[in-house]
Amino acid sequence: MSDNQDTSKLWGGRFTEATDQFVQQFTASVGFDQRLAREDIRGSLAHAEMLSATGILSEEELAHIRQGMATIEQEIAAGNFRWSAELEDVHMNIEARLTELIGITGKKLHTGRSRNDQVATDIRLHLRSAIDLIGVELTRLQKGTIALAAANCDTIMPGFTHLQTAQPVVFGHHLLAWNEMLERDHGRLMDCRKRLNQSPLGAAALAGTTYPIDRHRTAAALGFDRPTENSLDSVSDRDFAIEFCAFAALLMTHLSRIAEELVLWTSAQFNFIELPDRFCTGSSIMPQKKNPDVPELVRGKVGRVNGHLVCLLTLMKSQPLAYNKDNQEDKEPLFDTIDTVLGSLRAFADMVPAVRPKTEPMREAARRGFSTATDLADYLVRKGLPFRDAHEVVGKAVAHGVASGEDLAEMSLPTLQGFCAAIGSDVYEVLTLEGSVAARDHLGGTAPLQVAAAAERALARIMERPRPA
Amino acid sequence: MSDNQDTSKLWGGRFTEATDQFVQQFTASVGFDQRLAREDIRGSLAHAEMLSATGILSEEELAHIRQGMATIEQEIAAGNFRWSAELEDVHMNIEARLTELIGITGKKLHTGRSRNDQVATDIRLHLRSAIDLIGVELTRLQKGTIALAAANCDTIMPGFTHLQTAQPVVFGHHLLAWNEMLERDHGRLMDCRKRLNQSPLGAAALAGTTYPIDRHRTAAALGFDRPTENSLDSVSDRDFAIEFCAFAALLMTHLSRIAEELVLWTSAQFNFIELPDRFCTGSSIMPQKKNPDVPELVRGKVGRVNGHLVCLLTLMKSQPLAYNKDNQEDKEPLFDTIDTVLGSLRAFADMVPAVRPKTEPMREAARRGFSTATDLADYLVRKGLPFRDAHEVVGKAVAHGVASGEDLAEMSLPTLQGFCAAIGSDVYEVLTLEGSVAARDHLGGTAPLQVAAAAERALARIMERPRPA
Amino acid sequence: MSDNQDTSKLWGGRFTEATDQFVQQFTASVGFDQRLAREDIRGSLAHAEMLSATGILSEEELAHIRQGMATIEQEIAAGNFRWSAELEDVHMNIEARLTELIGITGKKLHTGRSRNDQVATDIRLHLRSAIDLIGVELTRLQKGTIALAAANCDTIMPGFTHLQTAQPVVFGHHLLAWNEMLERDHGRLMDCRKRLNQSPLGAAALAGTTYPIDRHRTAAALGFDRPTENSLDSVSDRDFAIEFCAFAALLMTHLSRIAEELVLWTSAQFNFIELPDRFCTGSSIMPQKKNPDVPELVRGKVGRVNGHLVCLLTLMKSQPLAYNKDNQEDKEPLFDTIDTVLGSLRAFADMVPAVRPKTEPMREAARRGFSTATDLADYLVRKGLPFRDAHEVVGKAVAHGVASGEDLAEMSLPTLQGFCAAIGSDVYEVLTLEGSVAARDHLGGTAPLQVAAAAERALARIMERPRPA
Amino acid sequence: MSDNQDTSKLWGGRFTEATDQFVQQFTASVGFDQRLAREDIRGSLAHAEMLSATGILSEEELAHIRQGMATIEQEIAAGNFRWSAELEDVHMNIEARLTELIGITGKKLHTGRSRNDQVATDIRLHLRSAIDLIGVELTRLQKGTIALAAANCDTIMPGFTHLQTAQPVVFGHHLLAWNEMLERDHGRLMDCRKRLNQSPLGAAALAGTTYPIDRHRTAAALGFDRPTENSLDSVSDRDFAIEFCAFAALLMTHLSRIAEELVLWTSAQFNFIELPDRFCTGSSIMPQKKNPDVPELVRGKVGRVNGHLVCLLTLMKSQPLAYNKDNQEDKEPLFDTIDTVLGSLRAFADMVPAVRPKTEPMREAARRGFSTATDLADYLVRKGLPFRDAHEVVGKAVAHGVASGEDLAEMSLPTLQGFCAAIGSDVYEVLTLEGSVAARDHLGGTAPLQVAAAAERALARIMERPRPA
Repeated sequence: MSDNQDTSKLWGGRFTEATDQFVQQFTASVGFDQRLAREDIRGSLAHAEMLSATGILSEEELAHIRQGMATIEQEIAAGNFRWSAELEDVHMNIEARLTELIGITGKKLHTGRSRNDQVATDIRLHLRSAIDLIGVELTRLQKGTIALAAANCDTIMPGFTHLQTAQPVVFGHHLLAWNEMLERDHGRLMDCRKRLNQSPLGAAALAGTTYPIDRHRTAAALGFDRPTENSLDSVSDRDFAIEFCAFAALLMTHLSRIAEELVLWTSAQFNFIELPDRFCTGSSIMPQKKNPDVPELVRGKVGRVNGHLVCLLTLMKSQPLAYNKDNQEDKEPLFDTIDTVLGSLRAFADMVPAVRPKTEPMREAARRGFSTATDLADYLVRKGLPFRDAHEVVGKAVAHGVASGEDLAEMSLPTLQGFCAAIGSDVYEVLTLEGSVAARDHLGGTAPLQVAAAAERALARIMERPRPA
Repeated sequence: MSDNQDTSKLWGGRFTEATDQFVQQFTASVGFDQRLAREDIRGSLAHAEMLSATGILSEEELAHIRQGMATIEQEIAAGNFRWSAELEDVHMNIEARLTELIGITGKKLHTGRSRNDQVATDIRLHLRSAIDLIGVELTRLQKGTIALAAANCDTIMPGFTHLQTAQPVVFGHHLLAWNEMLERDHGRLMDCRKRLNQSPLGAAALAGTTYPIDRHRTAAALGFDRPTENSLDSVSDRDFAIEFCAFAALLMTHLSRIAEELVLWTSAQFNFIELPDRFCTGSSIMPQKKNPDVPELVRGKVGRVNGHLVCLLTLMKSQPLAYNKDNQEDKEPLFDTIDTVLGSLRAFADMVPAVRPKTEPMREAARRGFSTATDLADYLVRKGLPFRDAHEVVGKAVAHGVASGEDLAEMSLPTLQGFCAAIGSDVYEVLTLEGSVAARDHLGGTAPLQVAAAAERALARIMERPRPA
Repeated sequence: MSDNQDTSKLWGGRFTEATDQFVQQFTASVGFDQRLAREDIRGSLAHAEMLSATGILSEEELAHIRQGMATIEQEIAAGNFRWSAELEDVHMNIEARLTELIGITGKKLHTGRSRNDQVATDIRLHLRSAIDLIGVELTRLQKGTIALAAANCDTIMPGFTHLQTAQPVVFGHHLLAWNEMLERDHGRLMDCRKRLNQSPLGAAALAGTTYPIDRHRTAAALGFDRPTENSLDSVSDRDFAIEFCAFAALLMTHLSRIAEELVLWTSAQFNFIELPDRFCTGSSIMPQKKNPDVPELVRGKVGRVNGHLVCLLTLMKSQPLAYNKDNQEDKEPLFDTIDTVLGSLRAFADMVPAVRPKTEPMREAARRGFSTATDLADYLVRKGLPFRDAHEVVGKAVAHGVASGEDLAEMSLPTLQGFCAAIGSDVYEVLTLEGSVAARDHLGGTAPLQVAAAAERALARIMERPRPA
Repeated sequence: MSDNQDTSKLWGGRFTEATDQFVQQFTASVGFDQRLAREDIRGSLAHAEMLSATGILSEEELAHIRQGMATIEQEIAAGNFRWSAELEDVHMNIEARLTELIGITGKKLHTGRSRNDQVATDIRLHLRSAIDLIGVELTRLQKGTIALAAANCDTIMPGFTHLQTAQPVVFGHHLLAWNEMLERDHGRLMDCRKRLNQSPLGAAALAGTTYPIDRHRTAAALGFDRPTENSLDSVSDRDFAIEFCAFAALLMTHLSRIAEELVLWTSAQFNFIELPDRFCTGSSIMPQKKNPDVPELVRGKVGRVNGHLVCLLTLMKSQPLAYNKDNQEDKEPLFDTIDTVLGSLRAFADMVPAVRPKTEPMREAARRGFSTATDLADYLVRKGLPFRDAHEVVGKAVAHGVASGEDLAEMSLPTLQGFCAAIGSDVYEVLTLEGSVAARDHLGGTAPLQVAAAAERALARIMERPRPA
């Protein structure tokens, strides 16, 4: 590479020395931002049409630009486009190729804009598309979860607190707890989309442009709700990327909780569910292994998304306005977050509906562990004991059961009456698992009828969502 | 402390050994959660009223509870309440005192609820109040910023990219860029409030309760929009805390950017603004120092808020449902985030309107640094040069100016024509600062009239906000 | 507070306006840095002695300072010291009180130093003490872990990968894996101590001082290895705090892994261990609950330490030299990290030795789950099969066992031979748990004799550690 | 891909269903772990040699393995190796190709090891090489920094605190503060290397192996200091990756501070240094721009490294022993951290020595800003004033100077005497910049002779470092 080549860069006029070769490679972004090619072309076409409508470009020039861009789009799709690190980024690569194809008109495209507003536009367009895809997969996961819940409104399992058996619940109720997390995630995703959907195009380098541009027109052409309000903010703002990564970190945290439960439940110790073989892998050395790889991997992936969020927050800390080169670092964490979220959702949306509950082990686990102890205490309260005393009585009965190996429902009436004379033979009804879950019969409770109704409401909420365009 | 005392805890029935004393102190939360006392009492009263309305408590019992709680509220306000670590947390401390004051009825208050839904309710109420206070301070900061902007629509300063002089802008335009960041923060705050404002009360320990409670009634009494949908989710969900901390991390990131600019601008090198003495401190050893302590401190405080966000995300990673003791760790980072955000906003809302721009140094800085180079290039384009060639011409003129020490507007016409014969004497108009800013005359541009209109729109948006209750 | 008072601050000469009252409170650090009082006095005495030795203070003045400081130390210990936010920080509070007590000589103490090097010295002294305490608790935890391991060299349990039963191991081997993590933590702690143990005293505000100070003398008096090399670095460096928090984050991550296992093992499903009641708490509503609160809480506390690390890294990002007010934010995360680590280690050092393995359920779990499948494959390899084929044979036998409910050792010889004719009656030896663990007989393997030797080596390494001073 | 193919995977025996195609791609790591190919082959050869030495493999088999691996190494180097996602990872890809090349012996290579210890070995080898490369670049940056410092022991510039002019320092002193940060980084890097340099090979899947392996032999062959102590720990430990990322986060934080100063100093406002054009880029729209891209980009890159550290800490939180699939997520953040650190160090090691201080503007900036105010106060103390009174006098003189525009050295003697009669004509000596820096004449102070000596010591420390192998 000769100096000539190098100092003839688009910005080389005031420079007396070629860019250091390692610096060129170190500062180039085309290796990762070529992913924005589709959006870059779309944004350029909207800009060109506006330039033509406002008389800055002729109709013929616009036609040439459209033609050139069509060619470039085909070249990229076919894998024939020659990306060059010397041309720094996706924007300069495409512009250079356009000029090669259609001559001087290619250069006129840059009238009234700058790379600073161009890149801000491209990322917003790209993220908006990603959000719409993520919305589809998230909805699919929710529907699968709700369907499995609806089918398991009376499948009894132990509910845990502190990973200790607490009270019996139905499996469908547990699954709908997952759906509540995902429902909030969907709300955050839509709020993020709403806030990002403004067009920075026309902010130019930082202060706007001296050309008579029409920012409303380009905003509308690109599907934005409106143009942004302030040019300095437009080129320096990366809130949308951070807000999206915050959404993603919370979603992945939820998936990590679901994953943890899937891993626990497939262990020999819990044995609550079966995962189909197609979502598992084996061991090269231990022939008996069937490992829940997909949940484990997704659980691990929360790390990278939390990391990307920290990356972007650190990146923006203390940056003075307007654009600084630091901001080039926004893309890789954002892109990897998009891919991680999409992949994890897809894997879960495929897998969760295929989870097969093992109803017998679930029920057996609920039967042990004194899960109806609260029901016994409530029973005693209905017999007139203060809750505090009832709690004490049941605590002693449990201590006895721990020693003797009996669950409460397995103790004889005399044994139970040894702890409190008020206990009658009707106690065994409240000690059944069915009695226990059915008794929690209010909005949000685990009674099977409540859970069935909740599943219906959950599905109805989803069906009201607007379809993505 | 005797074993007797210890094993007579509310949950001691099945235990054969007293809690280790260090463990008691290590696991107690009353040191920090007493901050929730007001919300705990408010939640208990709403619960008691519902219990009375549904016939679980008598009207007389309700009256006693109200009386007892009034006494407790006074004791706490007066600093006479005796907090005890043995009673673990704010909830047990208040309940124990209530029972001391009104006897057995105090214990009945806990009918149909558990500490798990109680604490979830308290935190949501507390955070909702904090959000409303933060909304007020944020609005105050925005108003002050917009007012300063409106007063500085034609105060010219250099706009920077890469901290290099880029193009002239007006100070008001720069301030409105700050306001755009804050406006998005306000939107996120309101979205967070909307999502948190649901009542978990009635979820009980994890599965609901066997008592015939009315969750809609308590939700309404506490100002919630509705009850939550799922009891397992209700006691294990901490999304609201994480979403709030994500809002806060982004807000503090914005304040760190503003702070960085204030620190730069008060340096001897920039000398763009004067901060009133009352927001600065001096040095014990260097008598000449006047340090911009408030912006520096706020810039530093973004660290703790980012840290709290990471804390909460780490905390929730991989937690199986429903409640685990880990969740006790949610309070300190949340409370400190609230305090940090409130303090930082208050300091900035007081300080920003008192910033005094030094218009002469600002203007002088814009005059140097070749800030109108883009205008010269645009001028040449209007004279018929392709932008690329215009850029090259101006680059050479700038290189000459760097060497000779002249700005573009200081070069003689023959000198300028030496770079391009097309330059005429009308060039000096576009090289003025006023000409440069006025030329960026479109929505979002830095033209003084555009900035004045933008300030009006910004204020109008704020005035449309609903007043906090 | 009158303006007079306010502008008469130690640094008020050039100021024309009192500090804003809210700003005063917002920027004061005495609320949290009074924790450094002991180190501040110790550092001041070392400085005073040096000033006296180099003739800057008279012996009489030194005697007065010693007397005054002794009084202050008593006042603080007795809780009688009046801390004032107006005096900003611990340093100014103590200096002001000293001057009150001994007059003008109190002011001379500040000769040749500044708050910037003073605070850097105080934090280093404080952290060094904390490190020594942490070293003691960490060593105690390691000793308890090794002792439990030594007592359980032949207690068989299932070893897990992917939380699926993998191969039998002995419990002592598992415990020694914990100890390896802690051993590395101890190494990192000592490396951190080594790097921090240099004296910044004498760096003054940022550039050193014009007084003829002796930095080697104060360094030695305070137990530092040497004075720091560069004054600008000395007042701006917070590496020691970050390195310590990085150590702490990794230690807490290890404790979270141990905690996770303790929580799993105390669940009804695993039932591998018993935690003494004194480390557990119960439920106010579920009488049967015995919750592993201590491990859960410690698992949660990794969040806050990760958060503090992020806080400090964010804090220092992009700070220009030398001291900035941002750095005041270093103390709270550092102090809380110290307290969290000390408390968590103390709780674990008390609890881990009290863990009681339930050997029968452990053994039973290892017996099921096809944990000796690898041994069968190795057996087949010894009979001449390629490993790949042996793996396939065993995989089929396992699939059969999954369906029939038999473990490998429970299958009849004809059944086994149905999978591979080469299997003889000697196969049952390799399928025993004892045979399996004993066969892994090399350094680091789970054979009981290897584990016993490893426990001895582990203890020997600890006994070689230098005692803290 | 047929099902046949799929269920014939190395671990397929117990599986009845092919892996889902998306799952296969989602869980495959070969896309990023092929980077470990060199280390994988090296580790395999050491393992094979040990197997041969202990009689498990024949010499002929060893020879075939060596031959096969040589072929594979060439194929990879030439870019002809066919990587397959079906074969999951680098290890299975290489083993499968080896078996293709040399037949059944290829499969025997896996005797006595597992992928779990294999991957742990590979990463340690890879990271150790990376650490050695990083050590070289870090040393190069330090040498360049020290050389620039040595050449600028009497180049006067303002020293800043709070970004306000504080006291004059010499530029070399400032540069040596950078070197102190880097020196500590080097220490941490070496400590990390020391701790990672143990061989996990032989830990097998988790418990060791039943084959009579010699772990000391493979450890020595691979340049490790010794074998690891515990097999469970060996396959689950990722401390080395976290410790390395913690080192990297602190190093990048230091580079971000240096970068911030370079950006400030190249601004028109500071104008302290010139960066060669080859480290800068221009603007496509603003012809005058010369942007400090390299420092800005490196400043931004601290974000990704902080993020990777958070990623790994999050990843490991709460993982039960031993290996879980989550751990596959350790590689990408580790690799990207290595690349980021190497690239940033290389860029800085090239650039820093080429920084050209602009001595006149530096000196002029030090002359203004009342940087010798402390010297005046010290002068007054020598004339008998208590420091407190001297501080007050100088504060008033500064306030006068702020109003009149004079620096202290520019005020007439009568003016100065107006603030304090004790001032004599000798005052002007202490008010010179040379007098001020020379007076700070002690270890670590900014006196030119001290700085020159410090530069020599700094270089001597580096020269004592052992050369990397």
